[in-house]
Amino acid sequence: MEEPEKIFFQDQWPEIATHCWGCGRNNEHGLQIKSYWEGDEAVCEWQPKEYHMVFPGTVGAGIIASILECHCGNTAIASIYKNEGRELGQEPFPRIVTGTLTVKYIMPTPTRRPITLRARVKEATEKKITVSCSVYSRKKLCATGEVISIRVGQ
Amino acid sequence: MEEPEKIFFQDQWPEIATHCWGCGRNNEHGLQIKSYWEGDEAVCEWQPKEYHMVFPGTVGAGIIASILECHCGNTAIASIYKNEGRELGQEPFPRIVTGTLTVKYIMPTPTRRPITLRARVKEATEKKITVSCSVYSRKKLCATGEVISIRVGQ
Repeated sequence: MEEPEKIFFQDQWPEIATHCWGCGRNNEHGLQIKSYWEGDEAVCEWQPKEYHMVFPGTVGAGIIASILECHCGNTAIASIYKNEGRELGQEPFPRIVTGTLTVKYIMPTPTRRPITLRARVKEATEKKITVSCSVYSRKKLCATGEVISIRVGQ
Repeated sequence: MEEPEKIFFQDQWPEIATHCWGCGRNNEHGLQIKSYWEGDEAVCEWQPKEYHMVFPGTVGAGIIASILECHCGNTAIASIYKNEGRELGQEPFPRIVTGTLTVKYIMPTPTRRPITLRARVKEATEKKITVSCSVYSRKKLCATGEVISIRVGQ
């Protein structure tokens, strides 16, 4: 049986949302992470470069924080679409800002292997979406974190 | 009166600690932040590039988290040297890992102006150093955060 085709959130976003350093497909200097639903979990698989290190072989804590924050923000937006029964990327694009980011580092994350992030919405109100996320290298849990996104505008 | 010459922590670190994506002077792909003491505060002034955006004109939350985490880690190391009465960069170089990172975002940080970070040690034991940090754009407080560093090895 073939795997279902992954629909990456970031490929659906309108132009305005494509320049983000974390995930923008139109940001050539950025990390260009991609997120997709796997049931109720949003998954991101991303291969760091060796230069994303804190010291040779180990991913820096700031890079872990960056991909976690960006993946969780994208998950919050995708969850708004889901709850409203709208197709990803349809206008109006939900606007959010990150209110709080927390990361707990559990063990060093190697640069040489892909990193997998698994996020899910923990709590959502009209104004605030809390997304929790685990960061893995293969099966090893390397970090956990939480992002509170605040819905703005509209 | 001339300003005293700034001694940047990262210029003093031994070779092993110069490849960090956040602050390594030998990481050409990194952010290359620089930190120095101003009394009991460690200060970092850093100019983002436009591509560090979340959307045009505004710095991404991951970049803020990255510079905050890295500056606080460097502050923790510099504080160990200070407490031990040793010169910055002397061997043995204190080894730490980041245990926890928390960032609260208060208002958008513009990409076009330098960012100033001001950090200070809030609490220190033999094993654990907690550094709190404020992030400013000009005089505006844009974010606050805290990093708990764990001392390892030796």
